[in-house]
Amino acid sequence: MSELPQILVVEDEYAVQGFVDDVLTEAGFETDILSSGEEALTLFKAKIKNYRALVTDVNLKGHLSGWEVAKQIREINPACPVIYTTGAASGQWASHGVPNSILLEKPFASAQLVTAISNLLNAGSSPILTEG
Amino acid sequence: MSELPQILVVEDEYAVQGFVDDVLTEAGFETDILSSGEEALTLFKAKIKNYRALVTDVNLKGHLSGWEVAKQIREINPACPVIYTTGAASGQWASHGVPNSILLEKPFASAQLVTAISNLLNAGSSPILTEG
Amino acid sequence: MSELPQILVVEDEYAVQGFVDDVLTEAGFETDILSSGEEALTLFKAKIKNYRALVTDVNLKGHLSGWEVAKQIREINPACPVIYTTGAASGQWASHGVPNSILLEKPFASAQLVTAISNLLNAGSSPILTEG
Amino acid sequence: MSELPQILVVEDEYAVQGFVDDVLTEAGFETDILSSGEEALTLFKAKIKNYRALVTDVNLKGHLSGWEVAKQIREINPACPVIYTTGAASGQWASHGVPNSILLEKPFASAQLVTAISNLLNAGSSPILTEG
Amino acid sequence: MSELPQILVVEDEYAVQGFVDDVLTEAGFETDILSSGEEALTLFKAKIKNYRALVTDVNLKGHLSGWEVAKQIREINPACPVIYTTGAASGQWASHGVPNSILLEKPFASAQLVTAISNLLNAGSSPILTEG
Amino acid sequence: MSELPQILVVEDEYAVQGFVDDVLTEAGFETDILSSGEEALTLFKAKIKNYRALVTDVNLKGHLSGWEVAKQIREINPACPVIYTTGAASGQWASHGVPNSILLEKPFASAQLVTAISNLLNAGSSPILTEG
Repeated sequence: MSELPQILVVEDEYAVQGFVDDVLTEAGFETDILSSGEEALTLFKAKIKNYRALVTDVNLKGHLSGWEVAKQIREINPACPVIYTTGAASGQWASHGVPNSILLEKPFASAQLVTAISNLLNAGSSPILTEG
Repeated sequence: MSELPQILVVEDEYAVQGFVDDVLTEAGFETDILSSGEEALTLFKAKIKNYRALVTDVNLKGHLSGWEVAKQIREINPACPVIYTTGAASGQWASHGVPNSILLEKPFASAQLVTAISNLLNAGSSPILTEG
Repeated sequence: MSELPQILVVEDEYAVQGFVDDVLTEAGFETDILSSGEEALTLFKAKIKNYRALVTDVNLKGHLSGWEVAKQIREINPACPVIYTTGAASGQWASHGVPNSILLEKPFASAQLVTAISNLLNAGSSPILTEG
Repeated sequence: MSELPQILVVEDEYAVQGFVDDVLTEAGFETDILSSGEEALTLFKAKIKNYRALVTDVNLKGHLSGWEVAKQIREINPACPVIYTTGAASGQWASHGVPNSILLEKPFASAQLVTAISNLLNAGSSPILTEG
Repeated sequence: MSELPQILVVEDEYAVQGFVDDVLTEAGFETDILSSGEEALTLFKAKIKNYRALVTDVNLKGHLSGWEVAKQIREINPACPVIYTTGAASGQWASHGVPNSILLEKPFASAQLVTAISNLLNAGSSPILTEG
Repeated sequence: MSELPQILVVEDEYAVQGFVDDVLTEAGFETDILSSGEEALTLFKAKIKNYRALVTDVNLKGHLSGWEVAKQIREINPACPVIYTTGAASGQWASHGVPNSILLEKPFASAQLVTAISNLLNAGSSPILTEG
């Protein structure tokens, strides 16, 4: 298969960027990793690539939190799977998260991230669930 | 709410027709009940009503089995929930059933039918699962 | 059992209020029904009763939408099950809804509402899912 | 359908016996209600009826707890759905319960009990899940 | 563990054969890969090996489509997990697929295939779901 | 991420110990592997490490079976995910297993173990499921 599924990653710690990039590449995805929510939304809205899922840290350095990035991406693509990662803000997920998203608390194993994305993508690709 | 969700029922035993009609009406649905798959497909294709789900007996008197009725309805509406009922043919479901369907073996309680339809409808109504 | 599970309902159409009240009472719940999100939050925060779930229309006459009511209730009780009902705004659920909620598009059958609440309550009552 | 699915109920409070009996009968099941685990096991082992599910209170007056009744019934029929009810002992479910069971904490609504049984029965009746 | 779970793969593009073989071997499975549905059915029916799951492309060069291969395999083993892969025919899954199957649209990540098979196998291996 | 999720493994065959250790380390977990249930419980109760999940063989050389180890660990941490592995005793899972556990029959693929642990951990980390 010449092309791989594209994942948009928003993460402002360089060490975690490298970890997420390695894990997703090894699992057969291609990643675009950005440091702020503003950059990620710009890229997502440009529609140069067809991003299949969003992985976003909750706490970001810019004005936008991960919660806000996910909301705006869901307004554009209501079916886009969302994975939040966080070291501290997990208590806010119940009120700030979007439906059908998964929150991973750090530290998480690489397999947890890969399984979370795969489950959301596999569920979403079932044609029965999309209105004809 | 002036209008109720419509369910298409295919069943050729009159006693079971009455049972299914009573149960679904009590649960807040409206039903159209037909005795053969051919009649059911004619009605479904006419699109006079917007049927939200199919309940079909597997063994029918006409040429079409319940397996075949469900397949043809899914070709028209890939998201239509399907409930099969059967007294004997449950072993064929794994090879003749469609994805995301439920098979109820007779005798079943009225609550099992109502819960099966409600679960399939509630899952399907989640907008995240439909491509924007 | 002397006491029944309490459900908080926010709905500003009187006809729908009566429908929801009848359905939930018949299903074994007790309901408090309010016409605005502001009233509902006042009652929820007063903690006079232990509400086990929220059923809210999305479009309400006051300043608060159903989306906003659910968010504020989840900040107080992150485990509170949420059911949204709507005639028109289902497209916003993917970006405005909270995790582990269900959206019912009108018209829905009484059984769909009852099954939705029961499933969320039964899932939440499993002690394995609460951190010891 | 001449015959209804049989549910075995173990409950030693007479008021709750009546409530559970009414709820399950209304939902289309037939019930045999016994006051002790010993009686329930005797009846289950006699195989006079084909019980499709067990509903058991956790705290019983005899020597056997509901946890123990469920374990012995699963040794005879590993696929039998189990619903535990309890006013107090929910914390023990994670260590004393069996897999694929549901625990309902009192007070629960009649609809929660009906939905719990129906979900377990419908899942179990899917022929794909039984080894041919 | 001296023996590994065997997966039967039907795929007529050599490049994809190599990809699927590498991915499944890396994930701890053993694969037999065949180019046509006819060959796959011959091998499956011979029962020389105990295949635990089927991965089949939908569009195959022989007379049999992947839909047909899965149906025939389910008639022999109703519990056999099925994964369909396709570049184009996903719209037919709702009417041509079998229950409890997963469809992966190309391009998919290697992790999606591995997670899909593992989820179906893990669900199927739960003894509660098999009638004693 | 400086720290990795810790998994407690109870397994008395050295060959399987090495296999499980390699698989879980590759998947991003850290493991402590012990040969008997008694040792595992001592370590778990000492709370030197925060074990996130238990993987236990069912048949162990000491006095404690894997069923008993899991029960005792669930009494300490009701939310701890449990994976049982077994070559022979799978028929006992329905009566001896704990709720929300997964049983893997040998031989299983490395991916099945990794997906099983990841699914249980990801489900448990959803804050909506923990009572506030």
